[in-house]
Amino acid sequence: MRKLLQNQVGGEIYGFFTILGVTAAFLTTFSFLPQTIKTIKEKNTEGISLLMYGMFTAGVFLWLLYGFYTKDLPVFFANLITFSFAITILTLKLKYR
Amino acid sequence: MRKLLQNQVGGEIYGFFTILGVTAAFLTTFSFLPQTIKTIKEKNTEGISLLMYGMFTAGVFLWLLYGFYTKDLPVFFANLITFSFAITILTLKLKYR
Repeated sequence: MRKLLQNQVGGEIYGFFTILGVTAAFLTTFSFLPQTIKTIKEKNTEGISLLMYGMFTAGVFLWLLYGFYTKDLPVFFANLITFSFAITILTLKLKYR
Repeated sequence: MRKLLQNQVGGEIYGFFTILGVTAAFLTTFSFLPQTIKTIKEKNTEGISLLMYGMFTAGVFLWLLYGFYTKDLPVFFANLITFSFAITILTLKLKYR
C-alpha cells in the first residue's frame, strides 16, 4: 500500500498530491454511504435512475477486477467499498420501483 | 494519451487490461448521464441524497485537480465529464428539495 502510493506520486509519500488523491478517493467512495442509508430508511427510490445504478454498479465491478489484475490495492479496495454501496442501492431500486 | 495508457498498463496498449479499464471508466463516468436527464425531466429529487452529491461533487473536483497536477489526462478528462453531471444533479437537488 505504501509502495503503491509511493509509485503513484513519484516518491513523495505524504506530499500534496497524496493528500489530494486520498481525500478525493475518500469523498467519492464514501459519498454513496449517505445515499445507501437514506434509501434503506426512506424506501423512496422514485427519483433514482435505474440505468445509472445499473451502469455504475457494472463499472465499479470492472474497476474492482482492474485493480485485482493490475495488483493496484487502492483501486481494488476503494471499488470494493463502492461496489457494496452501489449494489445495495441497485437492489433497493429494483425492490421499491 | 497513448503514452499514459501505455504507462498505466505496462506497455500493452490494446490488451485486456486496457479494454477492462476503459470500459470501467466509460461506465462509471457516463452512468451519471441517465440520472442527470431523469432529474432534469422529472424534477423529482426526493429520493436523492444531498449529502451524497455534496461529497461526490467535491470528491470528483479534487480528482480533477489531481489529474491536472499529476498530468494524468484520462483522470482529468473522465472527472471533468463526471463533474459536469454531478454539479448539475447537485444544483437540481438544491433547487427542488
